[in-house]
Amino acid sequence: MITGKNYIGSQLLASGDKTFKTFNPQLNIENPWQFTEATADEIKLAATVANKAFLSFQKCTGKEKALFLRTIAEEILALGDSLLDVYCQESGLPRGRAEGERGRTIGQLNAFADLVAEGSWVEATIDTAIPDRVPLPKVDIRKMMRPLGTVVVFGSSNFPFAYSTAGGDTASALAAGCPVIVKSHPMHAGTSEMVASAVVKAAQKTNMPEGVFSNLNSSGIEVGVQLVQDPLVKAVGFTGSIKGGRALYDLAAKRPEPIPVFAEMGSINPVVILPEVLKQNSEKWAGACAGSVTLGAGQFCTNPGLILAVKDENLKVFTEQLASEILKIAPSCMLNPSIHLNYKVNNQELSSQIGVQVVAAYDESENPNYALQKILTVSGKDFLENPVLHKEVFGPFSIVVQCENESELVAIINKLEGQLTGTILAEDNEIDNFESVVDALGNRVGRIIFNGMPTGVEVCPAMVHGGPYPSSSDSRFTAVGIDSIKRWVRPFSYQNWPDAQLPEALQNENPLGISRLVNNVQTNNPV
Amino acid sequence: MITGKNYIGSQLLASGDKTFKTFNPQLNIENPWQFTEATADEIKLAATVANKAFLSFQKCTGKEKALFLRTIAEEILALGDSLLDVYCQESGLPRGRAEGERGRTIGQLNAFADLVAEGSWVEATIDTAIPDRVPLPKVDIRKMMRPLGTVVVFGSSNFPFAYSTAGGDTASALAAGCPVIVKSHPMHAGTSEMVASAVVKAAQKTNMPEGVFSNLNSSGIEVGVQLVQDPLVKAVGFTGSIKGGRALYDLAAKRPEPIPVFAEMGSINPVVILPEVLKQNSEKWAGACAGSVTLGAGQFCTNPGLILAVKDENLKVFTEQLASEILKIAPSCMLNPSIHLNYKVNNQELSSQIGVQVVAAYDESENPNYALQKILTVSGKDFLENPVLHKEVFGPFSIVVQCENESELVAIINKLEGQLTGTILAEDNEIDNFESVVDALGNRVGRIIFNGMPTGVEVCPAMVHGGPYPSSSDSRFTAVGIDSIKRWVRPFSYQNWPDAQLPEALQNENPLGISRLVNNVQTNNPV
Repeated sequence: MITGKNYIGSQLLASGDKTFKTFNPQLNIENPWQFTEATADEIKLAATVANKAFLSFQKCTGKEKALFLRTIAEEILALGDSLLDVYCQESGLPRGRAEGERGRTIGQLNAFADLVAEGSWVEATIDTAIPDRVPLPKVDIRKMMRPLGTVVVFGSSNFPFAYSTAGGDTASALAAGCPVIVKSHPMHAGTSEMVASAVVKAAQKTNMPEGVFSNLNSSGIEVGVQLVQDPLVKAVGFTGSIKGGRALYDLAAKRPEPIPVFAEMGSINPVVILPEVLKQNSEKWAGACAGSVTLGAGQFCTNPGLILAVKDENLKVFTEQLASEILKIAPSCMLNPSIHLNYKVNNQELSSQIGVQVVAAYDESENPNYALQKILTVSGKDFLENPVLHKEVFGPFSIVVQCENESELVAIINKLEGQLTGTILAEDNEIDNFESVVDALGNRVGRIIFNGMPTGVEVCPAMVHGGPYPSSSDSRFTAVGIDSIKRWVRPFSYQNWPDAQLPEALQNENPLGISRLVNNVQTNNPV
Repeated sequence: MITGKNYIGSQLLASGDKTFKTFNPQLNIENPWQFTEATADEIKLAATVANKAFLSFQKCTGKEKALFLRTIAEEILALGDSLLDVYCQESGLPRGRAEGERGRTIGQLNAFADLVAEGSWVEATIDTAIPDRVPLPKVDIRKMMRPLGTVVVFGSSNFPFAYSTAGGDTASALAAGCPVIVKSHPMHAGTSEMVASAVVKAAQKTNMPEGVFSNLNSSGIEVGVQLVQDPLVKAVGFTGSIKGGRALYDLAAKRPEPIPVFAEMGSINPVVILPEVLKQNSEKWAGACAGSVTLGAGQFCTNPGLILAVKDENLKVFTEQLASEILKIAPSCMLNPSIHLNYKVNNQELSSQIGVQVVAAYDESENPNYALQKILTVSGKDFLENPVLHKEVFGPFSIVVQCENESELVAIINKLEGQLTGTILAEDNEIDNFESVVDALGNRVGRIIFNGMPTGVEVCPAMVHGGPYPSSSDSRFTAVGIDSIKRWVRPFSYQNWPDAQLPEALQNENPLGISRLVNNVQTNNPV
């Protein structure tokens, strides 16, 4: 079922001679399949067929695109257990997670299908003519969103389904009317090929243009570099490290025609614990933090890697409770030995910084690829002065920072890089007294959480998954939720355009029955 | 009334020693006022006070910001004729234009005041909790737009009011809740200082935080470079040349924390004339094109610099009519001798390319700074092969390209760089037969016009002023109309946040009475 070839549209090609295999971290062995990297010619071909597909794909109706997306979901489900098996073999993640993530992926595809089938997402805006206006007549102007063109999606390491081949970036780009070229993640190239086969089958079943989707294998950086530089590519979606995301951003910015890159990158997701909650509910939150830090071996972009509080006796107790709770949790497998190695190196680097104390360190496991959780503690002063301690450690790891006082706490928040999330743990009304903390945190993050944990990213219209740099490369967009479609579209105006030649979304009669802003009034009525 | 100093917040400072003067192109003499360039310390101070102002300005209510914007409009009007005099002295533009542009500027300020006073623009989105959802409870998540931080606005040369100091970029940024630092255009530094005085006065009258607005003088590039590189600056608005806009974009992209730059740059605004209209209405459109090419001495970003048609006898007639019509129009003054010199050099460069014929050239004028209009013609083949002919010539200049056939016409459109506008002149139903032309043009532009001229950019919700690179640096936004506020904001989520501590826009009771998306239904009702 896995050929190891590249999907260039519906064609399976493998003319190159560079090959690689994926790895099973639970069994600590290579997987059997051999993948052939896409060649320069194959990459060029994928961009060419995608660009050709764009001419007709951009004109598909919302209902046609919805059918395509729903059929992708069905075809993924139709792959059944064999897909879940490959997912587990390539990621070391447990079966339950595989099923849950497949469910989330299906849910995302269907949510975008609903969005485009309904149709109001195009933000249709109509200002009708006023021919007798003085001093100048007003012409008729109508606006709606229009797709940018071919989007390149880089699969993430930690979500082989939900943020990879047919994940949120792909679903939102296809919904927008943009062809997609996936650069599959080398750690789960087999999962990607299987999901790609579902997308290709769905495209054929629903009569989508050839080339609307491609899936390219790559174990190094060359394929991605060529894709981002291809003049036919018009936008990029990426989920991964700051180093990787920034490199793509830089490449895209240097093009003769720069293109937007939405990169969702690093975040240490600060959790601020206010004094009253430390006093009254320390144990509850120590347990919650221990669970959140170790969830999925800490391999979530919203993993709480930083816990901030003003130091007092209660913080000492909390830290001991956190240490105790986290050591009760059995370690679990990381996605790949290379990720595990990075975890060990980074965790060691931070542990050895001046002023840092290790308060909990799990010290053995049954499998060499299992991540051993660790909790450090450090003073506010040492944390403030040492940028190494601000680095993300991808894994089940967190630092408790003991701040001298509220103003040091605020100074620390102000010095943090941009984050996906910030959390405040507080008793009722306690935050009224910590306005400066809440204000500072709000300016550094994309989502602020009250009395909860940052892990768990609900897919819903109000979700923002993104934030100030470097948590994302453009804080003006979200990577999760239906508004993530806005990354791949641009507004477009028709002036004085004949009604019959307008897209249906802008025609007087409103044949789609969508909500539109007509002469400054939001309405579903015809003009 | 003009001091020549920099406004750093409400302070007038001029500690530097680099000075410059503006120029009156109608009289061909320097203006009397001497301007002192902002120093590195002054620039740093402007960024520091703006950043401090941001902490409180971002919390102003929509009604407070609206009052600020309306008061700016009033204070600009209160400057009366003396402001119009300086505008004319620094731009060479006629009095009627000054009044009209002032009206447009006032209109923009009031439109943004209306927008933020009403309040629904924040896109409030509420997904309420489902505590008993299985397998996992759903938490309450609420989203709204939030300002990015300090915005630097570069004044444009060709709109001393509407796209400069208190123009569209400044009005939209202030409406969003972002402090603004204007780098005034050196050609109209006096106009800018006067308008800045109105903004500063309005800020004081309406109790806005000190530092919410600054206006810096600069005749070179240093001030702008330092501003774009300042870590406290979070976004940039620019209207001007491709060279200038790209330089700022590159600087912003290279920062440790890259920031968004919305640059509205060059465009040659192709006008496609279909065969039937050439046959039936040639004279009418020749007159309209002549008027549009010469309007404002051709100093509009939507000036039609390229006319495309399939060659036949009627195109020959049209070209003769255009030549004849354009020579009937009296030349007018350009903004500055340096712009006039550029016009002469660029126009000469294009006129001397292989295959180019000059069909109309005005050959004398009463003033050395008046632009002499010119029309060239060239074959489709020569145009396609010569990128020099694709360059924008800022001034009253256009090229008529004689295409061999429809497919060459489409090939030319596909080869054009991104444009602000594209125009189709056609008889009724004629465009039905030119789908490939319309499709190609749509993919290259931000606004497509039927039987009209691209000059004249209506300020209304459905307007898109922007387009694929290099007409703008990010086609996902517009520089004109209320949606231009979206350039300066980012979505922000509150998860499980206590109702009383939420911004009013997201509170259950909907105290602002705005339109919100609540559990996927757009409504003004409370939750």
